[in-house]
Amino acid sequence: MLTLYYMPHSCALASHIVLEEVGAGYRSVLVDFRKEQQRKPEYLAVNPKGRVPALATGRGVLTETPAILAFLAQSFPEAGLAPLDDPFAFAELQAVNSYLCSTLHVAHAHRMRGYRWADDPAAIAEMKRKAPQAVGEAFALVERELFRGPWVLGERYTICDPYLFTLAQWLEADGVDPAGLPKVAEHRRRMAERPAVRRALAAELAPAD
Amino acid sequence: MLTLYYMPHSCALASHIVLEEVGAGYRSVLVDFRKEQQRKPEYLAVNPKGRVPALATGRGVLTETPAILAFLAQSFPEAGLAPLDDPFAFAELQAVNSYLCSTLHVAHAHRMRGYRWADDPAAIAEMKRKAPQAVGEAFALVERELFRGPWVLGERYTICDPYLFTLAQWLEADGVDPAGLPKVAEHRRRMAERPAVRRALAAELAPAD
Ligand SMILES: N[C@@H](CCC(=O)N[C@@H](CS)C(=O)NCC(=O)O)C(=O)O
Ligand SMILES: N[C@@H](CCC(=O)N[C@@H](CS)C(=O)NCC(=O)O)C(=O)O
Repeated sequence: MLTLYYMPHSCALASHIVLEEVGAGYRSVLVDFRKEQQRKPEYLAVNPKGRVPALATGRGVLTETPAILAFLAQSFPEAGLAPLDDPFAFAELQAVNSYLCSTLHVAHAHRMRGYRWADDPAAIAEMKRKAPQAVGEAFALVERELFRGPWVLGERYTICDPYLFTLAQWLEADGVDPAGLPKVAEHRRRMAERPAVRRALAAELAPAD
Repeated sequence: MLTLYYMPHSCALASHIVLEEVGAGYRSVLVDFRKEQQRKPEYLAVNPKGRVPALATGRGVLTETPAILAFLAQSFPEAGLAPLDDPFAFAELQAVNSYLCSTLHVAHAHRMRGYRWADDPAAIAEMKRKAPQAVGEAFALVERELFRGPWVLGERYTICDPYLFTLAQWLEADGVDPAGLPKVAEHRRRMAERPAVRRALAAELAPAD
């Protein structure tokens, strides 16, 4: 049994959607950022980085969205969520997910968590001010260069799609107008209709017990 | 024939070392940052992100260090640089490389390239001031939680090792004292003696023709 540690509206949604897509048996555990649970000893024992997502498996805990998504694609090959037998195509997929992780998500984090890279409140405010531009440029690169259509990598729906969808959910809050990103915006609308996406979103927004 | 686009002392060194480790036939092309070549149309046609590394293959160009390293490990399985038949172990490897890419390398980039996330010179200076702390904390997590020894993932030398080595080459310039990171520092000394590492470093530092 897999256990996903998540916070609603976080990047953990990508892993949540893929768990639903592959039909894995899993439970999910809320790590409530409003109570700073990600920094409590209980959670640091699961993930010493103090971040979500983390995926507990029978063999140990996995972290990092690109690694978790590829793990699920490889563990449930019948779901067909990655070109597992083609190193070049798999690397193209990994390159998209690595860009989402290391550039696009990181640009967004400068609006939310500037304190990681500066102490001075004025510098933190300046990062927040520039975040729409930095996030917008990263999405523009996705729109212009990476997105093939109808899915991120072309005809085949892969683990890149839930990841892009997850980050695109933040566009408005990041101050980026989706109208300037027609492919990303249309992809997001299509993604939102998938049953697995609806189930993941509903599960994250259901009241915790 | 593979072509690696690189700049000396950049994160492209990790890909360069792995090309040497696997014994691939390749040539390398300098993208001279001192001449801003990474932003010129010629290079943007190779990699629209304007970054190194990029690896041109017979099927197209790959970018993003974690994707390139996994591609080389999968394309040269006889080199044994990744646990290719074990999705969990492969995901542990990918999680390390994703952390190096999205957190450790990004912390370092705040010393070099704060303009990505702020325009105000005072904010850029503030990020530079805090970089030793942010980089130091990311390396401390590697030292304490991720590094198993003698190699990053334990007994087996993998594509995580050249990547950690590459980023550890920046420690002094990033203002982090390697003495506080004994495992990382010892790993770096051992890595520097590997023939493949020496060849990659020598090739990058040879005068361009
Ligand atoms: N590189 C990691 C980043 C994980 C990450 O930063 N998660 C955020 C939520 S989107 C988090 O846990 N933030 C909590 C905090 O910084 O305290 C990944 O892609 O999984
Ligand atoms: N996520 C990318 C980052 C690549 C990257 O930022 N490379 C740096 C060199 S270490 C670069 O090309 N910088 C040039 C620039 O920003 O103009 C990777 O891991 O490959």
